[in-house]
Amino acid sequence: MNAMKRAAIIAIGAMAWLPALASAMEALPALPPIPSDNPMSAAKVELGKQLFFDPRLSIDGTVSCNSCHNVMASGTDNRSVSIGVSGLKGGRSAPTVWNAAFLTAQFWDGRAATLEDQAKGPILNPIEMGMPNAQAVLDRLNRIPGYRDQFLAVFGGNTPLTYDNVAKAIAAYERTLVTPNSPFDRYLRGEEGGLSEKAKLGMQLVQDVGCTGCHNGPNFAGPASMPMGMSFFQKFPVFPGSTYDSQYRLTQDLGRYEVTKQDEDKNMWRVPTWRNVALTAPYFHNGSVATLDEAVRVMAKTQVNIDLNGGQVDAIVAFLNSLTGELPLQMFPQLPATPNGVVIPVER
Amino acid sequence: MNAMKRAAIIAIGAMAWLPALASAMEALPALPPIPSDNPMSAAKVELGKQLFFDPRLSIDGTVSCNSCHNVMASGTDNRSVSIGVSGLKGGRSAPTVWNAAFLTAQFWDGRAATLEDQAKGPILNPIEMGMPNAQAVLDRLNRIPGYRDQFLAVFGGNTPLTYDNVAKAIAAYERTLVTPNSPFDRYLRGEEGGLSEKAKLGMQLVQDVGCTGCHNGPNFAGPASMPMGMSFFQKFPVFPGSTYDSQYRLTQDLGRYEVTKQDEDKNMWRVPTWRNVALTAPYFHNGSVATLDEAVRVMAKTQVNIDLNGGQVDAIVAFLNSLTGELPLQMFPQLPATPNGVVIPVER
Repeated sequence: MNAMKRAAIIAIGAMAWLPALASAMEALPALPPIPSDNPMSAAKVELGKQLFFDPRLSIDGTVSCNSCHNVMASGTDNRSVSIGVSGLKGGRSAPTVWNAAFLTAQFWDGRAATLEDQAKGPILNPIEMGMPNAQAVLDRLNRIPGYRDQFLAVFGGNTPLTYDNVAKAIAAYERTLVTPNSPFDRYLRGEEGGLSEKAKLGMQLVQDVGCTGCHNGPNFAGPASMPMGMSFFQKFPVFPGSTYDSQYRLTQDLGRYEVTKQDEDKNMWRVPTWRNVALTAPYFHNGSVATLDEAVRVMAKTQVNIDLNGGQVDAIVAFLNSLTGELPLQMFPQLPATPNGVVIPVER
Repeated sequence: MNAMKRAAIIAIGAMAWLPALASAMEALPALPPIPSDNPMSAAKVELGKQLFFDPRLSIDGTVSCNSCHNVMASGTDNRSVSIGVSGLKGGRSAPTVWNAAFLTAQFWDGRAATLEDQAKGPILNPIEMGMPNAQAVLDRLNRIPGYRDQFLAVFGGNTPLTYDNVAKAIAAYERTLVTPNSPFDRYLRGEEGGLSEKAKLGMQLVQDVGCTGCHNGPNFAGPASMPMGMSFFQKFPVFPGSTYDSQYRLTQDLGRYEVTKQDEDKNMWRVPTWRNVALTAPYFHNGSVATLDEAVRVMAKTQVNIDLNGGQVDAIVAFLNSLTGELPLQMFPQLPATPNGVVIPVER
């Protein structure tokens, strides 16, 4: 098992790296890693928030980042697969944006190393936001005076409005989307009454059963000490052959293989966070499992080949619920206007 | 002309009523009318805000009230016609929700007497939010503990969660969506420098030309003294036959006739507000006109049979821009969760 897990850790980057798998449970830090080439500022975060909520980043003006990563709720759309422009359906379930800043790679298949890289994808994806190319995004933003002014103020230089800077602003905002003070975190800090006895039993079980072999680190998605851009992958199912495979189409999507075309990447997935997992149903890359208790049963069977009993499932679900943090209070952005006209083409 | 305008005022209700058309220009009151059967409370407004932003009020969990009435921007979607679930397109352009609480009837054709009545429509419209019936909405909300608790706290009684109460909560929130302190309002209060000389010229022109025959009252959408439920309608075009009719398909949609099937209601429309009109392009019921200056030219030609010159158009546009108010600062709602599961059906 340990060898298998180690083998499952595949570097996106070139750096060699050995994980510390058996670390103790960790609280969520107040701040995620901030890349040196994209420092935070209040003005950049505000610009990124506006972009995150702006449906004008989609071809027909109907889809924003928030459409599928709803920060008024779970940071997802709570759908099996997302729906983009023109009612088009995506192939996978939207991962939560909450605490995504702690992940060392983005997307279910880890194909983006950073939040900046990730942000560039959906805007140009024909079944998500559907913009034809980066220049079309910039052309549109350039026609919105409030954006022109803010990009200049935040990034300066001769060409402040670039697609890289659009992504940097959105990523800076996303680095504020952290959910501290879950019952589990308060328990780790020594606060009394944070965890029920059932949740404490679940906390012990996820370690005994082996779940925390992968779901470890402060984000329960792999070691925090991993360098950004290097992801923490695992095969799903590790133990194929259960009835769950067909019931939930577990092997249909080949996961990271679709990126690398390497046989060893078939059905490999970036380990998702447990933070706020109680909020993010339906579960798995294809959103095929409606409830958390069933997701726990499926994972125990497919990943560590254990049939949990009802009491064990209940306890683990109770523990996972203790990882629901406090959603930060936020003000609405006010999206910059185009007085007297529009940027979305008028239909005659 | 006066007789024609008076004839255009059609009561939805049974009350006889005579408008005072020639009133002086009025500032926007701080509060809109509050109906006696739906008093405001902070808890009700908060519940209504959550419902307004909750995409779970749509069949597939993708469309909320805010999707087409975006309160981070113009209170509209700035599209020619709105797009609902499954990429379906509506037939008319979404009116702004800002200051809608001051309108004495809702929808372009005035078919809803109140905000409460209006709120019930889009949720059940198959090409908007697509819920099959009111009971399906209630069934879904009943499965969300946070909503059950709030409906009980706000409305009390044995059956607090009714479709009427859903509409009441949304309407209560919408009555907070008022945009005070526009340059025009500050000017009326005697503040110096609120209006440019060009805007002042425009203010005089809209009265001299006759625009304020219909666009009057504090919301520039008809007299404030009109009882709720009685709307202020006008034919558009009053003077048919200009090239604009075909260019912008002005007579294709029969407007209020589609509600009443009375010949005299052909091409009759509720007079829309001028408040924030600079933000709400594209213009008219079909969103066929992309810019405010063109909308001004079209209205002058079709409604009072005047060809404005460029300077006059500029001045009127400057005045209309002075009606852009301050969007209120708002906190994000946090949508009540369904821990460990979902209310939108999972797709296998």
